[in-house]
Amino acid sequence: MASKQFEPASGTRDFLAGELRRRERLFAATRGVFERYGFEPLQTPAFERLETLTGKYGDEGDKLIFKILRRGEHEATGEADLALRYDLTVPLARVVAAYGSRLPSPYKRYAIGPVWRADRPGKGRFREFTQCDVDVVGSASPLVEAEVVCAGADALDAMGVTGYTILVNSRQALNGLMEVYGVPTDLAGVALITLDKLDKLAPAQVVAELVQGRGLAEATARSLVDDLTADDAVVRMRKALAGNDAGRAGLAEVDRLLELAGPHIGPERIRFAPNLVRGLDYYTGAIWEVTAPGMPGAIASGGRYDHLIEALGGPDLPACGFSLGVERILGILEEADDGATVIDVAVTVMDEESSTEAVRLIGGLRRAGLTAEVYLGGSRKFAKQLKWASDRGARFAVLSGPSERAEGVVTVRDMTSGDQERVPVGEALTHLADRCAMKAAPDNA
Amino acid sequence: MASKQFEPASGTRDFLAGELRRRERLFAATRGVFERYGFEPLQTPAFERLETLTGKYGDEGDKLIFKILRRGEHEATGEADLALRYDLTVPLARVVAAYGSRLPSPYKRYAIGPVWRADRPGKGRFREFTQCDVDVVGSASPLVEAEVVCAGADALDAMGVTGYTILVNSRQALNGLMEVYGVPTDLAGVALITLDKLDKLAPAQVVAELVQGRGLAEATARSLVDDLTADDAVVRMRKALAGNDAGRAGLAEVDRLLELAGPHIGPERIRFAPNLVRGLDYYTGAIWEVTAPGMPGAIASGGRYDHLIEALGGPDLPACGFSLGVERILGILEEADDGATVIDVAVTVMDEESSTEAVRLIGGLRRAGLTAEVYLGGSRKFAKQLKWASDRGARFAVLSGPSERAEGVVTVRDMTSGDQERVPVGEALTHLADRCAMKAAPDNA
Repeated sequence: MASKQFEPASGTRDFLAGELRRRERLFAATRGVFERYGFEPLQTPAFERLETLTGKYGDEGDKLIFKILRRGEHEATGEADLALRYDLTVPLARVVAAYGSRLPSPYKRYAIGPVWRADRPGKGRFREFTQCDVDVVGSASPLVEAEVVCAGADALDAMGVTGYTILVNSRQALNGLMEVYGVPTDLAGVALITLDKLDKLAPAQVVAELVQGRGLAEATARSLVDDLTADDAVVRMRKALAGNDAGRAGLAEVDRLLELAGPHIGPERIRFAPNLVRGLDYYTGAIWEVTAPGMPGAIASGGRYDHLIEALGGPDLPACGFSLGVERILGILEEADDGATVIDVAVTVMDEESSTEAVRLIGGLRRAGLTAEVYLGGSRKFAKQLKWASDRGARFAVLSGPSERAEGVVTVRDMTSGDQERVPVGEALTHLADRCAMKAAPDNA
Repeated sequence: MASKQFEPASGTRDFLAGELRRRERLFAATRGVFERYGFEPLQTPAFERLETLTGKYGDEGDKLIFKILRRGEHEATGEADLALRYDLTVPLARVVAAYGSRLPSPYKRYAIGPVWRADRPGKGRFREFTQCDVDVVGSASPLVEAEVVCAGADALDAMGVTGYTILVNSRQALNGLMEVYGVPTDLAGVALITLDKLDKLAPAQVVAELVQGRGLAEATARSLVDDLTADDAVVRMRKALAGNDAGRAGLAEVDRLLELAGPHIGPERIRFAPNLVRGLDYYTGAIWEVTAPGMPGAIASGGRYDHLIEALGGPDLPACGFSLGVERILGILEEADDGATVIDVAVTVMDEESSTEAVRLIGGLRRAGLTAEVYLGGSRKFAKQLKWASDRGARFAVLSGPSERAEGVVTVRDMTSGDQERVPVGEALTHLADRCAMKAAPDNA
């Protein structure tokens, strides 16, 4: 960058053509999947009334909200009345409350759009970033979990994410687990937060935190962690949960989801993970996380959250959703972007007289659906214009100087082979359209 | 709306599926045109550093900037350090300054995205609205004007705007006009602002304002307005401008644009309009405005602005752009939106056992590219689920109850005719894919 003053604001990014096209292609693939599932797009404003957002994200979250100063005579008060949206879920709750029965029931919606958080910008962390959510509001059917999980998995496939695994658990199963192992009810919540660290910390460290930090009996903590980290943890957990009402109900939720979604997703890509906790305490039923090789943490996550819409200011409706970490996914996918624009035909301009002819030809090419550009620089040198055509990634260049005009032809140059051919002016359009179609064919085959 | 508290913030809108799809289709058509012209997409952040924006839009503009409060310990100062972008041109100037030679030269970019202005919201005026700009930075060639005008016209065509006219003038021609009619140099600027009102006010009112408000001699004002509003105004103006250096240069700019762009756009859709002024004083060359029948004011406008990029903080590069008033265009186009989602297949669920089969079938339908939904509601009544299928606009419904299962079939109902057919389970997928393809065919023909 020439100077810091021209950089985008801290934590935000400019997207030039190559990167922007890569992002848009990913989003379009995702949208295509959601549309085939019958999810409807929703777009809410960038900012909401301040009171719509505050108090919804906890104390830490509230601090990260970008607030907008009042305007005009009120600006001097230094008060804010609006705020940039922090996620796509609070706006969803507001829309469900506002439109009520005018929305389909259940309301299946997807949203892909920027959110803003005043986080300390760091490696791979941004203050403006895109979220991609798919949610169903208004149905308690277990088919909802299956639909949402299958839609998310198909979207990951469409984006080109490979080798991922969907880990499934249930809040009810976790509650049952606490009961079975004799964790006192008032310690269950914090114990689960510690157990969630089993994928990062050594088992002994987790036991220590459970005992010293959370106040669990040492024997309880040890048997819980031993069983959860055993090679046959799934077998042990299934056995343990079967002896408890909440445990059985939770297992049934997990198994129903595996049964419904497994055949579509591939049974090897989705499995019960008894130690999956998910930090957020608003989940009420099945929960899941998607992991991919080489990625610490999850690239997507979701679950059933039956009372969150009400807590966010909407009506009390059952709901279930899946959020895909598209910024993270964009980061792990092949770095190759589309690079420079690639165009079909570059039309050179050797003198004033050829301009009119060039504009006429190029209009026809574009009407035929080709990407075509005319040289807009100041040079009248052939070599310079040819370099421009090459820089633009042109497949063909069209040259028309005095000698061509005298003969009523244009020269068509194949920019890959360097072969040149003289074509009558009247046939140039069809000639180029045909050759571009032929060149394009191998890609489509 | 249930309650004002759930409405979007003043001047902003929620876009539900129908309207959002209509908007996106319009933007996609526009993008397609710009891409064929070799314009590259650019996306800049929603907010910029406050100092990047202030002082760029005049005093009135500055008041309309949404400012973002500083955060953390600085929040109490009541100061702002960031601001929502007010247009797409200042961010373009910043990007040109920041990336310099890493951008193609000339830099042909398009941008379609929201901007925010703290205007008093009114009928058809919003605080969050989409702008659609196409600009070329770094070339003084008259081919640039032709490219930009043709791209804009093709985009209007692609959006479905009909019957529009592109009115062309030139700042140089206007300067020449002032000289020819003897308007003192220091009054020329304000006199032009008044002349711009000739499309709204009666000629006598414009004369009065020129004399009383602007201080022109009455004879000067009268002859200027008489000539500009005469039936043969174009002839009179061409004659007048020919007698003056600036006038001749301006006419040459206009004629070159008509000559280059006319054949592509259709000569009847673009013409010299000697009384076109355009309020903004940053234009330096050709200027234009697009009018459509029944619309007061312009639906799109643009021109050459050779020193604006520098004034906005970028390098001093020639530039030229066209801005399409997409919100206005969305307002005048057919009001019909896409309405409710229309899906290919609705799969009903009569009992627990049919759920698994339903999910399997629907997965196959979606893989085949069809839009398919499964019933997620709580009712097990046939009539209720059929109503759901109808509400979703389904072409076909699939029914599978105990009697179907006993025979190894599903019932496929044509939702238009009401005809039902029993199809073996194993053939349901191909049967539905074929029938949907047949139903779709007439639309594609």
